[in-house]
Amino acid sequence: MFSKAWEGFVPGKWCEENEIDTRDFIQRNYKEYEGDASFLAGPTEATKALWAEVLDLMAQERAKGGVLDAETEIVSKIDAYPTPGYIDKELEKIVGLQTDKPLKRGLMPFGGLRMAEQSLQMYGYELSPKVKEIFTQYRKTHNDGVFDAYTPEMRACRTSHILTGLPDTYGRGRIVGDYRRVALYGVDYLIKQKELDKLHMGGRMTPELVRDREEVAEQIKALKALKSMAAKYGFDISRPAETAQEAIQWLYFGYLGAIKDQNGAAMSIGRNTTFLDIYIERDLARGIITEEEAQEMIDHFIMKLRMVKFMRIKEYNELFSGDPTWVTESIGGVGMDGRSLVTKNAFRVLHTLENLGPAPEPNLTVLWSKRLPLGFKRYCAKVSIDTSAIQYESDDLMRPLMGDDYCIACCVSCMRVGKDMQFFGARANLAKCLLYAINGGKDELMKDKVTGKHMQVAPKYEAVHGDGALDYDDVIEKYKQMVKWLAKVYVDTLNLIHIMHDKYSYEALEMALHDTKVRRFFATGIAGLSCAVDSLSAIKYAKVYPVRDEEGVVVDYRIEGDYPKYGNNDDRADEIAVWLVKHFMRQVASHYTYRDSIPTTSILTITSNVVYGKKTGNTPDGRRAGTPLAPGANPMHGRDTNGALASLESVAKLPYDFARDGISNTFSITPDSLGKLDD
Amino acid sequence: MFSKAWEGFVPGKWCEENEIDTRDFIQRNYKEYEGDASFLAGPTEATKALWAEVLDLMAQERAKGGVLDAETEIVSKIDAYPTPGYIDKELEKIVGLQTDKPLKRGLMPFGGLRMAEQSLQMYGYELSPKVKEIFTQYRKTHNDGVFDAYTPEMRACRTSHILTGLPDTYGRGRIVGDYRRVALYGVDYLIKQKELDKLHMGGRMTPELVRDREEVAEQIKALKALKSMAAKYGFDISRPAETAQEAIQWLYFGYLGAIKDQNGAAMSIGRNTTFLDIYIERDLARGIITEEEAQEMIDHFIMKLRMVKFMRIKEYNELFSGDPTWVTESIGGVGMDGRSLVTKNAFRVLHTLENLGPAPEPNLTVLWSKRLPLGFKRYCAKVSIDTSAIQYESDDLMRPLMGDDYCIACCVSCMRVGKDMQFFGARANLAKCLLYAINGGKDELMKDKVTGKHMQVAPKYEAVHGDGALDYDDVIEKYKQMVKWLAKVYVDTLNLIHIMHDKYSYEALEMALHDTKVRRFFATGIAGLSCAVDSLSAIKYAKVYPVRDEEGVVVDYRIEGDYPKYGNNDDRADEIAVWLVKHFMRQVASHYTYRDSIPTTSILTITSNVVYGKKTGNTPDGRRAGTPLAPGANPMHGRDTNGALASLESVAKLPYDFARDGISNTFSITPDSLGKLDD
Repeated sequence: MFSKAWEGFVPGKWCEENEIDTRDFIQRNYKEYEGDASFLAGPTEATKALWAEVLDLMAQERAKGGVLDAETEIVSKIDAYPTPGYIDKELEKIVGLQTDKPLKRGLMPFGGLRMAEQSLQMYGYELSPKVKEIFTQYRKTHNDGVFDAYTPEMRACRTSHILTGLPDTYGRGRIVGDYRRVALYGVDYLIKQKELDKLHMGGRMTPELVRDREEVAEQIKALKALKSMAAKYGFDISRPAETAQEAIQWLYFGYLGAIKDQNGAAMSIGRNTTFLDIYIERDLARGIITEEEAQEMIDHFIMKLRMVKFMRIKEYNELFSGDPTWVTESIGGVGMDGRSLVTKNAFRVLHTLENLGPAPEPNLTVLWSKRLPLGFKRYCAKVSIDTSAIQYESDDLMRPLMGDDYCIACCVSCMRVGKDMQFFGARANLAKCLLYAINGGKDELMKDKVTGKHMQVAPKYEAVHGDGALDYDDVIEKYKQMVKWLAKVYVDTLNLIHIMHDKYSYEALEMALHDTKVRRFFATGIAGLSCAVDSLSAIKYAKVYPVRDEEGVVVDYRIEGDYPKYGNNDDRADEIAVWLVKHFMRQVASHYTYRDSIPTTSILTITSNVVYGKKTGNTPDGRRAGTPLAPGANPMHGRDTNGALASLESVAKLPYDFARDGISNTFSITPDSLGKLDD
Repeated sequence: MFSKAWEGFVPGKWCEENEIDTRDFIQRNYKEYEGDASFLAGPTEATKALWAEVLDLMAQERAKGGVLDAETEIVSKIDAYPTPGYIDKELEKIVGLQTDKPLKRGLMPFGGLRMAEQSLQMYGYELSPKVKEIFTQYRKTHNDGVFDAYTPEMRACRTSHILTGLPDTYGRGRIVGDYRRVALYGVDYLIKQKELDKLHMGGRMTPELVRDREEVAEQIKALKALKSMAAKYGFDISRPAETAQEAIQWLYFGYLGAIKDQNGAAMSIGRNTTFLDIYIERDLARGIITEEEAQEMIDHFIMKLRMVKFMRIKEYNELFSGDPTWVTESIGGVGMDGRSLVTKNAFRVLHTLENLGPAPEPNLTVLWSKRLPLGFKRYCAKVSIDTSAIQYESDDLMRPLMGDDYCIACCVSCMRVGKDMQFFGARANLAKCLLYAINGGKDELMKDKVTGKHMQVAPKYEAVHGDGALDYDDVIEKYKQMVKWLAKVYVDTLNLIHIMHDKYSYEALEMALHDTKVRRFFATGIAGLSCAVDSLSAIKYAKVYPVRDEEGVVVDYRIEGDYPKYGNNDDRADEIAVWLVKHFMRQVASHYTYRDSIPTTSILTITSNVVYGKKTGNTPDGRRAGTPLAPGANPMHGRDTNGALASLESVAKLPYDFARDGISNTFSITPDSLGKLDD
């Protein structure tokens, strides 16, 4: 079985007994490509016809208000549907749908029934009474569990939106299975390794060990369900893939199982491009496929990834300014031996943006390095200019820490494929936290319905007194205290959420495609960084007078004089940003984190900064209540007046070691941004 | 609300704000009764008529082969049935049935679906496909969880029956709610206290704290369901009981909720007799009831307890030689202040054995003390002689450790009501363990189906060599090693079982009627004590030659000479028994136990010794393979030849401090046992 599947591959550790090592397989077998894009093939007739069908379905979907069809009866699981679903069976080179029909949204109540029911109602569907009975009378959801255990303080933070986007009503996502393992080893071998792992798990029979043993048992069941699902499409994935088409199909089945099982906020797919190139190169060398056929398979694969959809409530889509699934595929990067991981397949994958037209999903992400081959860099630039649809991440920054087989989950979270996982953690609003520090824990916007007074959300720490200009040292001391409180309630909230997610909505298949002993990251996030920094800078360098309402709560600020703003490469402001990131991260890291996870933070709100801003009152930097915060680590809109380079320099000062889950900067480059035009 | 319910009661700590203290209420309000049984009333006409109906139903049940009717559709929960069930609504003074019809068995799959399904099949019923779907596709059971996490070694021990009766396919039982709280405080007050407890539960948000918080949330839901169930019978138990009839009814509703929710192996009811007497005395003094009416209420209450039934497989009934439910009610005992806790109601409860005739359930258990009033002692003796239906336990032994408000769960496990719970732990067969020591971990009976050789169950420790007489020191060294292994795998198995039981079949209502911070016992048990002791004595004091089969495994023993036997007050044998109990308990206590539970052991097989004996080969004491072991701490059958007193003296040497979960001795007294008759 293996000899046929692995024929022609360079052996190594990856194929030794009881080993699973996809990276070793890649390193020994991939062929770096340093040429240009001239080899690429356009779409085949089948691709054009198939894509036209998909585009038509997507148009129907938009016409229907965003959802074409939705399941109300069959609860989505790896192998829930009795029959396979197709777009057009005759044309599809890569098959497999989340439900039984294209673009029909699955019913996924394990994360939370309310979300599943409400989203159906919003689009005119009704949840089956039987499913409702099961998930209220018999099967508790993640959401139920979390709300059973929440403290009043956690609920208050959630209501006030000082903590926002907590994954407590739906799947947490951000876990990326090593889907390549399905293709390279076949499912039976993976099951055997999990059985061995379980056999060897020993020690004191604590709740932790019992949980670990049960999880591996669930992983094995998930792998068996995956085989069964693939068999309905006519494929025997118990054995390894033998051709490029099978490799893509097997890999996609692995991912498909994951998106049938989980509706995580970000369901990224990993780093598969180089891996698949090895199979394509072998088939090209064998003469059993042409470049056109190779491109066709990749086009069809990407088409499937473009069709990944979840049933979400409209508020969710508003929060994310769309209907994102974060099917992130990481491309390129450089290996530890100095060779780039760019293959012809990296071109093919980007080329789908040309063959099928631009699209935000899958989120094609180039792991950028100075050392990428010039031909590839040029092609990236071309496709970026033409489609604006490529995301870039610094491989040079991440590689020293993560090696050469990590991938990006969601937008910036890096993880070693199959070896790391992440507990996704939403964001704490540090701008709003500053307002709490000034007001002794009272929310500046939210009022008690009965008394009409401002709600006390944080502890009643001493507020700023008087009407004089705010004193920087006084405010900083109060802010530190409030950040300390926020970090604690934030970390505890996330601990609780992830404990319940493991209990009620464990990602058995995704984790089956990880090593049994994984490294876990505990991801927190910062929102409102630049607003908090500019506010502190204003207090320090200008005169900021509090404006109090009749209750004595500071609801506005009067600023006299100017102050340095973050985003202008001005150390006076930028140092505050550096301090705040470090201070917050140190506070986060001081607390217990579930499953010995490694605490990290990110500065990455890409779109949700708009919603966060709505829930934040007037700030001492002059920003008006309700207006957007800046996205991610961006300077506040319009305040980076020293040019593009200065803006980037400010962002670049933020210490990656203290924001290891990633720093995002949303940046539009027009020729203007780079300097004056000749004519 | 409280002032009406508590009118005339002596106040104290029990009625202070946010206090729950049933014991304090009892101590301040009960009236010790030192008289005789002459006040007792016979059964009323209503009692006779109602009991005749029940007897008729029970006769029908027997005629149908043991089960009158069984639920196949509605999953039993505290409040699962839309309508109340009655025997005869007009006659019943105390109402409430487990299902919608008398003697109809509930459907209880949370402990394990297989047991629920098989038991239905055995009696000709078929499980509803919908319930089967729910409990295979959506809702995992305790049984599923346990078997997912079991190690191969645990499964082998289970198959070989060196560990037997593990609560892994059904509810663990042995948890006794303080059902009196429902009557004394009403459910709303209990909910309020649980909400306060939850509010105050703080600290690091670990999996343990999250579990604790979620459990209290579930307890609150269970109390709300209890109110709803009672409301269907027309009673508002949100408030405290105001009369004796209400007190009995409220208390019974609490217990009824528990037996609708859980089918634990032993569903004991606690220590309610003295508590209820306070309400009866008040109503008698108020002139609103007569003694006949008081007895009628107690008779009807006991009738209900006699009707408690669970759906069990026939093997289960064989293991327990019947269909026991262990509805143990603890009666009498002495208070810390020296007054006995005997009231008129203790007489009334025992009197049900006369009014309704003898019955094994409820398991009426007298907490015996030298200091019980003579009138009560005499009545106990009379009822025992007439009905053989009273169990006795030594209050003088337990009181110093447990105070004066403990009860017996099952047959010997003592717990402070509402303050202690127990993780029930089945038994380890120490006789079989000795055979493993001799055979280096090979099972003396069980053979591998493929190889036909003896199964290796325990580790391959060195076996006894040669055909010479067994050397005591050599065997003891090997036995110690094997007991050490057995204790470890036993404790780990129980840890795993109880972790899963909490996860998949948590006793929310029973625990709602406990203090939130409870003391937990981790109960293990010993089977085959006297057989192991006599075997060691034979090796030490006689000559015991191994008889090997063709594989070299010792399968029989040839004994030359006689040896002292346990049960004859002969220290040579009895000291081995004391050593073995201490040694086993020390080994058990050396391991991690779940939830900081206090390890204990018991020596209490009352009937299951027969089944355990079936799975134990020939032993060095001359016992033949397959014949019964002795029950509990009893000497081996027929070997206590020095008379009743010597037999009791041997048992009495066993150190209670090392078997705190209880020591049972099954003892039939005929006049002969006590000495020669005059004529």
